[in-house]
Amino acid sequence: MPHIRLNEELPGIRSLFDFRPETAGPLCRLADILLHQSSSLSRADRELIATYVSSLNDCYYCQTSHGAIAAYHLGGDEGAVLHVKRDFTTAPISRKLKTLLAIAEKVQKGGKQVAAADVENAKKAGATDLEVHDTVLIAAAFCMYNRYVDGLGTWAPQDAESYKQRAATVAEGGYNRIPSDVKHQTNGQIP
Amino acid sequence: MPHIRLNEELPGIRSLFDFRPETAGPLCRLADILLHQSSSLSRADRELIATYVSSLNDCYYCQTSHGAIAAYHLGGDEGAVLHVKRDFTTAPISRKLKTLLAIAEKVQKGGKQVAAADVENAKKAGATDLEVHDTVLIAAAFCMYNRYVDGLGTWAPQDAESYKQRAATVAEGGYNRIPSDVKHQTNGQIP
Repeated sequence: MPHIRLNEELPGIRSLFDFRPETAGPLCRLADILLHQSSSLSRADRELIATYVSSLNDCYYCQTSHGAIAAYHLGGDEGAVLHVKRDFTTAPISRKLKTLLAIAEKVQKGGKQVAAADVENAKKAGATDLEVHDTVLIAAAFCMYNRYVDGLGTWAPQDAESYKQRAATVAEGGYNRIPSDVKHQTNGQIP
Repeated sequence: MPHIRLNEELPGIRSLFDFRPETAGPLCRLADILLHQSSSLSRADRELIATYVSSLNDCYYCQTSHGAIAAYHLGGDEGAVLHVKRDFTTAPISRKLKTLLAIAEKVQKGGKQVAAADVENAKKAGATDLEVHDTVLIAAAFCMYNRYVDGLGTWAPQDAESYKQRAATVAEGGYNRIPSDVKHQTNGQIP
């Protein structure tokens, strides 16, 4: 049960965007820039980093919603997403992404855990400074989103199908539409 | 030494805002809403929450810069800030702030650490739902900012005076001015 009074029709972070639209704006814009807007890292790669960090933080809502978006970008390959969460070192992903996931794993533990050697490994695998930067910021940002979602006790749907449906919308439309979407829904016009 | 190539004249998160102005926008807006814009929680209280979480995350740059801003809002009382970092339960602060710092401490460990009883304690001490929400989001956001600053190996000034000078500017002007400020400075026009 949520620790504060939230719109019960909205799950996870969406109930928090509805509760505090002022902070929803920058939180959604940050996610859109990091995960959706054009980048030399594919959307699938970036969603896998977000999903992996969310699984390390044991946030069911975030790892399931972003896992579904990652799977959408991978043509529906849910197995690859589960493989990354279980053991990314043997998953069917690029060597570069493995080195970036290793950095993300350190960031989840704490910023000072990242060693120069971790970044060197990523650069040797072809990662640019911007890709390293965005990996660190995605991992750090999900240490925020995960704590926000679970720290206020929001609820999460348990059926995989609802995450899958939502994933298609977000994967295509991005994250900037979420605040107005939420506003729309709290007017009782849930589509 | 920073893990990526950053403007060496700018310390901490300011070098990262300069490196990636796109993400600097929402990151500064979020800080401004949570720490500077009007709220039933005083600016001093909110900066103390940010400082305390940053000290738990062992982020020197963030705990020193926000600690200096908290002290500014407390009329220069640096002792109170150090007392909160050392043991907030005996610090000269309100009972309500102590219950909010207890929530922030749990959020730093992980979102699921926050128990209904922690929030009940805060409400009994007079905290509103919005104040509980903002406390959780401030704590979660600093779990991001701290990891961002340290995960990319940014440098931090070691002299207290520079933090004190900067604190006055940010305490009065807020956080939204930071990106343009950084842009200004990277044009070689450091004031």
